[in-house]
Amino acid sequence: MSTITTTRDAVYVEVLQFYARQMRRLDERNLAEYAGTFTEDGQFGTSAQSEPVRTRAKLLDFLVEFHKQFEAEPVQRRHHFTMVDVEPQDDGTIRSTCYALVTIVRPGAMPKARSSCVVHDVLVREGDGLRTRSRHVEID
Amino acid sequence: MSTITTTRDAVYVEVLQFYARQMRRLDERNLAEYAGTFTEDGQFGTSAQSEPVRTRAKLLDFLVEFHKQFEAEPVQRRHHFTMVDVEPQDDGTIRSTCYALVTIVRPGAMPKARSSCVVHDVLVREGDGLRTRSRHVEID
Amino acid sequence: MSTITTTRDAVYVEVLQFYARQMRRLDERNLAEYAGTFTEDGQFGTSAQSEPVRTRAKLLDFLVEFHKQFEAEPVQRRHHFTMVDVEPQDDGTIRSTCYALVTIVRPGAMPKARSSCVVHDVLVREGDGLRTRSRHVEID
Repeated sequence: MSTITTTRDAVYVEVLQFYARQMRRLDERNLAEYAGTFTEDGQFGTSAQSEPVRTRAKLLDFLVEFHKQFEAEPVQRRHHFTMVDVEPQDDGTIRSTCYALVTIVRPGAMPKARSSCVVHDVLVREGDGLRTRSRHVEID
Repeated sequence: MSTITTTRDAVYVEVLQFYARQMRRLDERNLAEYAGTFTEDGQFGTSAQSEPVRTRAKLLDFLVEFHKQFEAEPVQRRHHFTMVDVEPQDDGTIRSTCYALVTIVRPGAMPKARSSCVVHDVLVREGDGLRTRSRHVEID
Repeated sequence: MSTITTTRDAVYVEVLQFYARQMRRLDERNLAEYAGTFTEDGQFGTSAQSEPVRTRAKLLDFLVEFHKQFEAEPVQRRHHFTMVDVEPQDDGTIRSTCYALVTIVRPGAMPKARSSCVVHDVLVREGDGLRTRSRHVEID
């Protein structure tokens, strides 16, 4: 096994680990911590928005606003990222594409699939870990 | 890539592999084999129970009892563990936290999401593999 | 950590990466590309068929025929492979068993779980990557 293979595998595992912590923060509504998994200039967009949100600070505002809908209606969301496809780039960034199956549970009810998406990320290394520089979510 | 990184990655992959076999045993109702993936003194609890079940022998009793509900109503359960977050500890144990999306299929019907959970495990190395020393399941 | 451990881990990660790209091709209806992830003599069967489809060419015919049902009814399918269990064999082939949760989304509707399956693959190394030599899908 070549060194290149080993490095690619290490990056793959790092991305899985990164996603697990990143999305649990969102699902647990630690919004500032979730925003902190993006770079300072990070951007986030979806196929339902005309323009992406730019910068970590504005992402946090966006998230706080978005989550107000759950105040009146308690619901536990879970983002299940599956089928992760990691492509390290020559410039040191990492392209990662995966499926997201978002489930919701209302108190006393059974879970429902809320949305199915394809997530397109550009991840970068900052300090001792990864951060999302840009995320574009295509909603099925 | 440092040796430490490589070891962490190896543990991560080992945990994914362990979960795949462990939970297929449960879903296929190989209850004794599933109980065998816990340590002798292993414990299992959920947010729906006041006290965890302690020891592998009592876990097996608990599982046999629990599965009686499926005798009258044939149903195939599947435990999908996603978003695995692995934290090797200094004492050699491994903390692992993940989501579990449990689906059920009744004969001739489409699958349903039955429950959404967060699984909190402490895994230990025994012989040539991993075992669960404790599992606490928070049901959403 | 021994070399053997490292190699097993590398194969595990390679299989996850392979599945992510393979199944996105199917879900995006790149049927020729998906068929190309099978070996020339590859075979594909399910518990709903009496005989597996043999050869890549016939698999492509089968897929084209199968997908005609979606012409009249637009639907986005997603294959979520989870709980991947990889067993490298002494002959160089790789046995891989996993769960597949297939979701569908109709325009404007919420996703539904369409089927739950156990996928039994034999993968082989060809050129610089993996290919599926045989796939048997047990539908729950």
